[in-house]
Amino acid sequence: MAFELPIALDAMGGDFAPKEIILGAKKAFDEHSIASLLVGDESKISEFDRGSLSVFHASEVIAMDEDPAKAIRNKKDSSLARCAELVKTGKCSATISAGNTGAAMAAALLKIGRIKGVSRPAIATTIPVLGHHPLVMLDSGANAECQSEWLVQFAQMGSVYSSIRYGIDRPKVALLSIGEESTKGSPLVKETHKKLAELNSETFEFIGNVEGRDLLSAVADVVVTDGFTGNVALKTLEGSVKFFMKMLLNIMNTNEETKKAQDILLNYLLPVADELDPESTGGAMLLGIDGISLISHGSSSSKAISSALRIAHDLSNANIVQRLKEAVS
Amino acid sequence: MAFELPIALDAMGGDFAPKEIILGAKKAFDEHSIASLLVGDESKISEFDRGSLSVFHASEVIAMDEDPAKAIRNKKDSSLARCAELVKTGKCSATISAGNTGAAMAAALLKIGRIKGVSRPAIATTIPVLGHHPLVMLDSGANAECQSEWLVQFAQMGSVYSSIRYGIDRPKVALLSIGEESTKGSPLVKETHKKLAELNSETFEFIGNVEGRDLLSAVADVVVTDGFTGNVALKTLEGSVKFFMKMLLNIMNTNEETKKAQDILLNYLLPVADELDPESTGGAMLLGIDGISLISHGSSSSKAISSALRIAHDLSNANIVQRLKEAVS
Repeated sequence: MAFELPIALDAMGGDFAPKEIILGAKKAFDEHSIASLLVGDESKISEFDRGSLSVFHASEVIAMDEDPAKAIRNKKDSSLARCAELVKTGKCSATISAGNTGAAMAAALLKIGRIKGVSRPAIATTIPVLGHHPLVMLDSGANAECQSEWLVQFAQMGSVYSSIRYGIDRPKVALLSIGEESTKGSPLVKETHKKLAELNSETFEFIGNVEGRDLLSAVADVVVTDGFTGNVALKTLEGSVKFFMKMLLNIMNTNEETKKAQDILLNYLLPVADELDPESTGGAMLLGIDGISLISHGSSSSKAISSALRIAHDLSNANIVQRLKEAVS
Repeated sequence: MAFELPIALDAMGGDFAPKEIILGAKKAFDEHSIASLLVGDESKISEFDRGSLSVFHASEVIAMDEDPAKAIRNKKDSSLARCAELVKTGKCSATISAGNTGAAMAAALLKIGRIKGVSRPAIATTIPVLGHHPLVMLDSGANAECQSEWLVQFAQMGSVYSSIRYGIDRPKVALLSIGEESTKGSPLVKETHKKLAELNSETFEFIGNVEGRDLLSAVADVVVTDGFTGNVALKTLEGSVKFFMKMLLNIMNTNEETKKAQDILLNYLLPVADELDPESTGGAMLLGIDGISLISHGSSSSKAISSALRIAHDLSNANIVQRLKEAVS
């Protein structure tokens, strides 16, 4: 095996850090030989078994509710800032954090920087689709207000991401709107629709507008939207998944009879729940940064961290940053 | 019983018109003594048993995919246009259509007109909340681009609607955003947040921002947003409800054993499905029109039409238009 750079893993970020983060790193190493560099407070990390994984000491931690940009500027020795620097200086192939999302973005922007020509990096989230590869949605919240040129770049970058992660040859790209007709939507959507249609890209197929209900279907491979709409849609979706699972479990726990039904159905429900589980998608990628930066759910378990490490590893091997540069050039 | 004006019901609008519309009108009359005036093609309406309900003949029909404003201008004798005129001229207390949503809006705007002082009417949708009264969301799609002053009026009007429909004394109003902090969101959201906080209204309590996931919870009584975001969120929600129901039915129909589980669970699932069913909410109201105009789902059954008629009847008895006028004055 050729020498591979380790992945800079923010050991202090997330609701269950550092324990679940370290467990996830160990899992990825034991099962897939993927090496992490655990970045964070050495004394705290040392409380857990990390196998042969190395530690990069960082004395500060950025809390979940801290002001992102300020935190990155002031806490120079924070695990998040150090992770980004390790990518910038070529010592690590990628960085992953389950901590403060805004601060992870700020670290990527301020420490690693944008790909030349990219107006605004976007958060690309993967939405599970039953019996089909997931759908890539971007922007999921980096830019609350967007311009049509940025959305065109989101389409270009999202296609590269979908191609690499799911092996799609020429991804179908759609615009999130409030009607399928090109005349429907906000001025931003209409303008972007026109530009994407005119672009006539060879690397992706623009299939026009889709609606909120299409986010759970296999209609498109990539759905492009501004960060405000994308974030609302994503959280609405996450909320309804949780709501349904909870409702169903409540019903199945009503009495002895319903518990019997539960015993029968759980074998069938669990694989589906697993497929819909955001944990299995391993995190969102910041597309447009001149390096690989993944943001995992704050509630990430070791399983989620291990998935994220595998994804970062695959993206690095596929040279995603180089391919993103070509796509926007 | 005092004399009551009938409700102008578009007999030609909706996927199952005129049959389900007429059945719904008959149901509302038989069960609740609510009188409709069936507006549409008399010969087609006469094919069905309408009991003692009257018909107002209109020779034209606006199709689901017609350009809204153009259709209302050109088809002067369309059922939708006639319905709105019957309200305008004081011959009916309200109008309901399950047809072309855009055309129903255009009819309301062009034929009935706005309440004086209202910048833009908004579509108020009710979202079912388990074990709680539904949440009112507006705008669900009338205005793809909004100004903060309009959103403030949406808050005022939505509160009146929530008060009347669900008997809420001082509704909790929230802004849909991408974070709970007042500093999160688009410029529009931040500006509106400031205005709503300063307004310090006596008729509603402004509780700040909520996120997409809160749309299924009892956090707020009224959620205010622009028509683009609102429509995307609503359709995402509707899509996921359908997706889950379908997935669950699929699983329960896998084999003999799972069918047994289905037999047990259906008694518990059906009331919940019923509570979440958009049909039971009966339709969305156009708030800001100088008359009562309800828009029902295109797929409305007789049950949905009957619910809509009851709601229109209640809103009319509660003098909603007068109360909306007071709220925005």
